[in-house]
Amino acid sequence: MRDNAKDPERHAARMAKKKRAIEARMAQAQEDKGVLLVLTGPGKGKSSSGFGMVARALGHGMKVGIVQFIKGKFATGEERFFRDHPDVTYHVMGEGYTWDTQDRARDEEAASAAWEKAVAMLRDPAYGLVLLDELNIALRYEYLDQDRVLDDLMARPEMQHVVVTGRNAKQELIDIADTVTEMQVEKHAFKDGGVRAQKGVEL
Amino acid sequence: MRDNAKDPERHAARMAKKKRAIEARMAQAQEDKGVLLVLTGPGKGKSSSGFGMVARALGHGMKVGIVQFIKGKFATGEERFFRDHPDVTYHVMGEGYTWDTQDRARDEEAASAAWEKAVAMLRDPAYGLVLLDELNIALRYEYLDQDRVLDDLMARPEMQHVVVTGRNAKQELIDIADTVTEMQVEKHAFKDGGVRAQKGVEL
Repeated sequence: MRDNAKDPERHAARMAKKKRAIEARMAQAQEDKGVLLVLTGPGKGKSSSGFGMVARALGHGMKVGIVQFIKGKFATGEERFFRDHPDVTYHVMGEGYTWDTQDRARDEEAASAAWEKAVAMLRDPAYGLVLLDELNIALRYEYLDQDRVLDDLMARPEMQHVVVTGRNAKQELIDIADTVTEMQVEKHAFKDGGVRAQKGVEL
Repeated sequence: MRDNAKDPERHAARMAKKKRAIEARMAQAQEDKGVLLVLTGPGKGKSSSGFGMVARALGHGMKVGIVQFIKGKFATGEERFFRDHPDVTYHVMGEGYTWDTQDRARDEEAASAAWEKAVAMLRDPAYGLVLLDELNIALRYEYLDQDRVLDDLMARPEMQHVVVTGRNAKQELIDIADTVTEMQVEKHAFKDGGVRAQKGVEL
């Protein structure tokens, strides 16, 4: 195995095969359209991945909309970094962590107000990418009407990409998504090793 | 289930319990230190997640180093977006996709040169976060000496965070990591639906 991996001829042959496979797949995949991506599961990296896609989209000159559900109150590193970008519209649901408010009616109200911000983006083809961070949590707690959310997502402009993050994605959302990634925890310092959540990578 | 989730008292009780659990866990986790995160698995979002962490770290005023292994040649959206940031040092391994070069010796040379750039960051405590994008690929193809890589990672400044991305993370790397997330594909438009890889979210 080790020797094969290092053998230059086998290596070149494998890479050539890989290149052909990728080109064939690219040729098959013809359709250009906005995709709905769902990033879910208990592992780290769901929101980070969404924000990485924001950076990528901005790098391509796109206009980006971001709505953060549930987490509010204190500014995250991402918020500080992206909020003032001229091509970014940023809204944070104003009620802080739900376990700090402990008031369902207020949570529902805040979620509905945040969804209105999202809908404005989902109706505007100027937005190339819309990130709905932690929307899955708002759906799971039924802060929002799921049917309305799905309708609004499906009615978006044809070329608009949407990224939805959060654990426990609803099956109905997965059904209408183009791409779904499930993040699994293999090992976690915060849980396993007594290391505090670290600013910069986790907060 | 649906009714329970909507009951305000049960909701408040559950949120209060969640808050206590989180506070207890935070109190237990005392140690402040740089963490080594590994993002692996076949699902989407590994590199995006790393770049999201870059944005987060920059939002906290940290200095960030980025080295991209394997993928080079054309500028990604992330590269365009982050390369000129005053707090970012960015290096891309210069040889393009390995399946374009098909030359093992050149790949090894390029990987070694890229590792030297990484080592300069890993020895400099001024860098709060170092992203080693797709390093797992370079290790898997044995373009780099694994023992040396692990030694350099472990010898880094105590408060420095490192994020390593790419499929098929080596077990020896997982062993020294603080947090490991495995991205699993649940559904993929590019594979399943004939949709071309989309600029902004995937390229």
